[in-house]
Amino acid sequence: MTRPFSDAAQIQSLLDVEAALAGAAADAGLIRSSSADHIRSAARPNQFDMAVLRLEAAHAGNLVIPLVRRLTSLVAAEHPESAGDVHRGATSQDILDTALVLQLRAAAAIVHEALSRAVSGAARIAREHATTTMVGRTWLQQASPVTLGLKAAGWLDMIGRCRERVARATESAMVVQLGGASGTLAALGEAGPRVAEAFARRLSLSVPEMPWHAARDRLADVACALGVTCGALGKIGRDLTLLAQTEVGEVFETPSADRGGSSSMPHKQNPVRAVRAIAAATRAPGLVATLLAAMPQEHERGAGGWQAEWDTWPPLVEATIDAAAAIADALEHVTVDAARMRANLDCDGGVAMAEALSTALRDRMGRSQAMAAATRVSRVARRERRPLAEVAAGDPEISRLMTREAIAQALAPEHFLGAAPLLIERVLRRWSI
Amino acid sequence: MTRPFSDAAQIQSLLDVEAALAGAAADAGLIRSSSADHIRSAARPNQFDMAVLRLEAAHAGNLVIPLVRRLTSLVAAEHPESAGDVHRGATSQDILDTALVLQLRAAAAIVHEALSRAVSGAARIAREHATTTMVGRTWLQQASPVTLGLKAAGWLDMIGRCRERVARATESAMVVQLGGASGTLAALGEAGPRVAEAFARRLSLSVPEMPWHAARDRLADVACALGVTCGALGKIGRDLTLLAQTEVGEVFETPSADRGGSSSMPHKQNPVRAVRAIAAATRAPGLVATLLAAMPQEHERGAGGWQAEWDTWPPLVEATIDAAAAIADALEHVTVDAARMRANLDCDGGVAMAEALSTALRDRMGRSQAMAAATRVSRVARRERRPLAEVAAGDPEISRLMTREAIAQALAPEHFLGAAPLLIERVLRRWSI
Amino acid sequence: MTRPFSDAAQIQSLLDVEAALAGAAADAGLIRSSSADHIRSAARPNQFDMAVLRLEAAHAGNLVIPLVRRLTSLVAAEHPESAGDVHRGATSQDILDTALVLQLRAAAAIVHEALSRAVSGAARIAREHATTTMVGRTWLQQASPVTLGLKAAGWLDMIGRCRERVARATESAMVVQLGGASGTLAALGEAGPRVAEAFARRLSLSVPEMPWHAARDRLADVACALGVTCGALGKIGRDLTLLAQTEVGEVFETPSADRGGSSSMPHKQNPVRAVRAIAAATRAPGLVATLLAAMPQEHERGAGGWQAEWDTWPPLVEATIDAAAAIADALEHVTVDAARMRANLDCDGGVAMAEALSTALRDRMGRSQAMAAATRVSRVARRERRPLAEVAAGDPEISRLMTREAIAQALAPEHFLGAAPLLIERVLRRWSI
Amino acid sequence: MTRPFSDAAQIQSLLDVEAALAGAAADAGLIRSSSADHIRSAARPNQFDMAVLRLEAAHAGNLVIPLVRRLTSLVAAEHPESAGDVHRGATSQDILDTALVLQLRAAAAIVHEALSRAVSGAARIAREHATTTMVGRTWLQQASPVTLGLKAAGWLDMIGRCRERVARATESAMVVQLGGASGTLAALGEAGPRVAEAFARRLSLSVPEMPWHAARDRLADVACALGVTCGALGKIGRDLTLLAQTEVGEVFETPSADRGGSSSMPHKQNPVRAVRAIAAATRAPGLVATLLAAMPQEHERGAGGWQAEWDTWPPLVEATIDAAAAIADALEHVTVDAARMRANLDCDGGVAMAEALSTALRDRMGRSQAMAAATRVSRVARRERRPLAEVAAGDPEISRLMTREAIAQALAPEHFLGAAPLLIERVLRRWSI
Repeated sequence: MTRPFSDAAQIQSLLDVEAALAGAAADAGLIRSSSADHIRSAARPNQFDMAVLRLEAAHAGNLVIPLVRRLTSLVAAEHPESAGDVHRGATSQDILDTALVLQLRAAAAIVHEALSRAVSGAARIAREHATTTMVGRTWLQQASPVTLGLKAAGWLDMIGRCRERVARATESAMVVQLGGASGTLAALGEAGPRVAEAFARRLSLSVPEMPWHAARDRLADVACALGVTCGALGKIGRDLTLLAQTEVGEVFETPSADRGGSSSMPHKQNPVRAVRAIAAATRAPGLVATLLAAMPQEHERGAGGWQAEWDTWPPLVEATIDAAAAIADALEHVTVDAARMRANLDCDGGVAMAEALSTALRDRMGRSQAMAAATRVSRVARRERRPLAEVAAGDPEISRLMTREAIAQALAPEHFLGAAPLLIERVLRRWSI
Repeated sequence: MTRPFSDAAQIQSLLDVEAALAGAAADAGLIRSSSADHIRSAARPNQFDMAVLRLEAAHAGNLVIPLVRRLTSLVAAEHPESAGDVHRGATSQDILDTALVLQLRAAAAIVHEALSRAVSGAARIAREHATTTMVGRTWLQQASPVTLGLKAAGWLDMIGRCRERVARATESAMVVQLGGASGTLAALGEAGPRVAEAFARRLSLSVPEMPWHAARDRLADVACALGVTCGALGKIGRDLTLLAQTEVGEVFETPSADRGGSSSMPHKQNPVRAVRAIAAATRAPGLVATLLAAMPQEHERGAGGWQAEWDTWPPLVEATIDAAAAIADALEHVTVDAARMRANLDCDGGVAMAEALSTALRDRMGRSQAMAAATRVSRVARRERRPLAEVAAGDPEISRLMTREAIAQALAPEHFLGAAPLLIERVLRRWSI
Repeated sequence: MTRPFSDAAQIQSLLDVEAALAGAAADAGLIRSSSADHIRSAARPNQFDMAVLRLEAAHAGNLVIPLVRRLTSLVAAEHPESAGDVHRGATSQDILDTALVLQLRAAAAIVHEALSRAVSGAARIAREHATTTMVGRTWLQQASPVTLGLKAAGWLDMIGRCRERVARATESAMVVQLGGASGTLAALGEAGPRVAEAFARRLSLSVPEMPWHAARDRLADVACALGVTCGALGKIGRDLTLLAQTEVGEVFETPSADRGGSSSMPHKQNPVRAVRAIAAATRAPGLVATLLAAMPQEHERGAGGWQAEWDTWPPLVEATIDAAAAIADALEHVTVDAARMRANLDCDGGVAMAEALSTALRDRMGRSQAMAAATRVSRVARRERRPLAEVAAGDPEISRLMTREAIAQALAPEHFLGAAPLLIERVLRRWSI
Repeated sequence: MTRPFSDAAQIQSLLDVEAALAGAAADAGLIRSSSADHIRSAARPNQFDMAVLRLEAAHAGNLVIPLVRRLTSLVAAEHPESAGDVHRGATSQDILDTALVLQLRAAAAIVHEALSRAVSGAARIAREHATTTMVGRTWLQQASPVTLGLKAAGWLDMIGRCRERVARATESAMVVQLGGASGTLAALGEAGPRVAEAFARRLSLSVPEMPWHAARDRLADVACALGVTCGALGKIGRDLTLLAQTEVGEVFETPSADRGGSSSMPHKQNPVRAVRAIAAATRAPGLVATLLAAMPQEHERGAGGWQAEWDTWPPLVEATIDAAAAIADALEHVTVDAARMRANLDCDGGVAMAEALSTALRDRMGRSQAMAAATRVSRVARRERRPLAEVAAGDPEISRLMTREAIAQALAPEHFLGAAPLLIERVLRRWSI
């Protein structure tokens, strides 16, 4: 997997930005185009050692100061006359921020691809299991019946929206940073705006209304979109771990030899992928909070907030990528046990059908009496571990109004699915699948 | 100020939703329209005591259970035949979530209005002070000159985007919640989808593809938009507190008798409004993180995450409203001290113009020598507390290349503002002001 | 339930502090003791309206400014000569912080009492169910057997530590705040330190080495202790919700008529108490993060961080109190279904005993072969839904080394509980129960 | 700098733990001591590649599964008879958690050393500048005078407490993890408790009452102590950046050639160290929140929370170490400009002495009139930019009661320092310096 926030990728991005800046300065006639060529040639990642740069950055204040120093000396070694053209008119933050934008673009593409796989996976389940009846669960208690297809449609709908929100937030953030020391482009003189245009063109980015060194809201949007996506993936991950519980056993990651074993327990098949998503959803809120907390940056360029961002983006992006890939894989490799679903519907006397019963009784005896009657027989069914239908049929008040057949009919889970098929259809249509 | 998350407003919203549900059930022919009328009549806030409801909710699990009980008994007292039609086919969460959506709609309108005032305030400063020169500051150190107009344009651009993001996120979340126990609408039988349509129409909301009891991403987007907005307002607040420091004194909240005094210090004029925005920006990240952390809700309706949302929305919304109003007020009531700005530019030997000097020298002696020369004379100026222009004019290397007049020219702050006017213009145009 | 962070309690605390300050000034001979009496008499909560104070505070900057204004006018109305002695030598923050300390002391006592009930509840379960065998679960999959007593001992040990950490952190924070405007006590002249001593004595607090207006670490410790406690309670809450799942049904809150019902489903018994703890554990991290993020307060008294604390303490404290009470109640009212535990141990072919099998085989065939054999028969047992012991007895490699009886013996859950009894005993002894 | 959370250090810790476990099993007579020797010999970090382990961990579920596999094959290559004794009786989490404990011990030592340097640095400033008068600042406005020594005493007191809290929290967490699959030690049979004792002894750790796989409160305490420490260091960092502002210039990091320069501005001396501390304080709250949010781990070992911890500890620990070292360095290398402090006290007409004036007037005219008079002359002084003493002397009401000399006396900053010297002394004594 390409990791857009690896050390190597960051150096590459920083050097791409310095090269584009030199090119843009040449485009605007500020420096010779040979100079831009020399700079681009020198800007090769293998000439830069991140461990060394990081060490120097701790003293210098940021990564670009030692990087520019090194780049300048590389250019100077071959073409002394071009050395002065390195980093022309820019401040360190121009380079760091623009490189970050490039890295986020790469990351968003990876997230998009993984979410698209997850969309397909969820859609397949939604369609294939549109009528596979299972119990719905609320407050972690059996509620009333749903279908696996409806559950999967819920996942699909959410992932589809996440794919959109990541794309939209990233798109808005695809703007170059170029302002120089205080954001006026003064060091570039008259040519400033032209350099900015060329810089953006070379990197396929947009030119914003003005530099945004201390206006981090566009980036914060991206962080939020990633955070919401992790939360959504975590919800799916949680559902999968719960469905895969030994005592539930309705849906689980298809076992494979090298996955989810235990170092001590021979029988274990841990839901490794789902758990990766939950872990990401547990981590993302704190990372997003950091990026929000870092927003009130002082004056033209901040003292603390900007610096707090640096080590926060990589884990946030990597957690999102990992969670998206994990859920995509999980949805592509689930095993469904429809028989177990049916058996679970009958567990605990089938009281999951109590709402169906009270609904059936409602028109016959009014809401509050219906509720009371259904509660009464549910308790008996649960206590005596007898089927709800049977207990209801033996209840004098109920049996006066409904035959044994009518009761059985009302309590058949597949007859109490409401609009489930329509809802699934709507979701599939919404995402054109 | 109307507070859409006050107890009173929440009860009103919950009752509005119950009334709309009854109306929708009548529209769909499920209940008599007289019943809907009876329910609407009984749904009067003054009949409900939030303190009591809250107490009962702790036992029952949520606020709607005792509210429905009370509403049912109010209806029953007058129209026993209609009591069974209360809360028809809904689950508690349908009511709570739809009421939350209504409250967020009201909140977004208030935020929008305050942000619009802030946009106007910032725009006025940006235009009036487009050429009011002041020093730019990075890492809390004087950097090179900007104008107050440019600074205000930065605020304006950011607030403008916040206004858009709150509107967009809220718009996407304006969907009813109606699914019944497990999200299938089963308790409404065939009529389910029609009831949902009527329910939405009565509340001027949309019908989503499917119920979203455990799919909180749309709400999380709203939370994020509020969080980013607080961060942006906090940045403005921070700038204002820093500019108002006694030792800086460039921009401050216009003093008034009843504002920002101290209980012990007669001279104090605390930047009360700006600080409210900073406080909001300090609080919002944790609140947003909570709403993100609450996303992985179990199965059809969750056990813990949903419940964690309840007390998190009010402070997040109120902090945003307060911060937006505070910054709007602050921007409408600032005093600008342009003379002090000029004086501050000269402080510390005027070394804030060092970049201007190195830029001027760059074409004459190459980048690295220019940098070295400017560094050298800056240090002398600072150490000896003499004007940078004077020290530069006395430096043999520099004076060989630049006359005293050229140096003075290069070091005039108003000659080193780069594209500031253009950038301000662009921002004003972007927001059509 | 007394709520130490209710509006009423806060006003009471603020007035207690102003009264103690006046008393202390009298003790030190700075003001007449009759003045102190007049101030104490005027400091009656029913004379103060929080809604009004809050409104004025938004302008003034904090709650104490209007409160002192009101208190002064109440004193002046009766004893004009004493009015000037109100709030002598203090700054608003002295009052607000010392009142907060008093409120935290009250809150800690409530938390302590609830945690003590939870300790007793858990201890009772640990003792009564020391040998009640159930399956242990890891990664939400059946692992190997434990006893309910061991599980409860884990809860007990954790709550016991939480009770200690809340007590210790609170104890360290029981220091008065008294420094005046800049923390030097200058406005009290020579008498400053003596006033501080008397102030502390009157409130049964300690005098810190120096005022701590912008040194919030002691308070942050309290916040952290509450946050960790919520996390621990949330873990118990999560275990309880999982054990109470319809498909697991091993431990659940004893049903009661008015608790955990549903507005739509007659059969529901929602784990309301456990969920309150999970909700608290979901909310606390963000609130703790806010208090940590607020720590870097500027200079002698901050501009933003301190103000962010105000609305963060009440929800954090109330969430902790609620979670502690909910878990105490839950542990006091659980129903245990030991038969269901036994049945669950046999579900899925009893593969939860696979580790017991591999342990038994280990000495007979070496670790890796034992692991492989146990894995092989576990898969067969699960796939064919046959008891593991039976499958193992039919496996040629295993049956060569172990008799059917030896296998049955090794696979009896109660024979594979390791040190569980000892561990329970240790925990009970540790907490002297 | 040694980094206890580097990949290398983690592998070393994991292998140390596996070696200690083997040694302990031998001590307890479970395996031959030659086996333990073979395992220890094979447990050499250079035989393990973290990149490969991580890749395999993504599939297996955690790092220890591939590590044990690799360790087993290394042992098997040389001593096949000992291979089965690797990882005896343990579950992966036993190894990962115990290694984490070892890493935290190493980290705490580094933090302790850096905080001790910071304590010394702050103490030196507190002592040397006990009477160096400067203005106190509240709400970022000049308040009344303090001394630099008092400010440094506040830093010292806070860092001293942080050193204690990190030590105490870490000490409590120095317990081994050893429980096997479900925390009963069952796989070790009778020998379990003895193995645990020996395991702890070999690692110089304690044996806890019971395994704590899903009871993370002790670890959470460590996280909180680190978080509070970052907050405290961030407060010092913030003070330093504010004092170093060009317009304030009272205290700054002693300039050096390779530190805090700018890639564009020749004159810049950025407060690099202070900013590193602020950045850490911005990041820590989110990371601590993650560890708190991860606490509700399911049953015997969790599915999501535990896994979320793994990548959260390294940045939290490293941020704390970095911030502590940065502040220690900064305090050891500050330059103090006492003349500038004096000049700043006089800026804005010297209204920072307004409280001193009202205090002096208080006994002469009563509190509220004194406050009014001081407010009146402060406004004039500020508006007309004249010295407060002069304006006061010209005020009819004031001059009736105080001579020009008495006014000058009252308004000399060094006469309005209250208990500052005593407070400094107390703090120095508290930390035995």
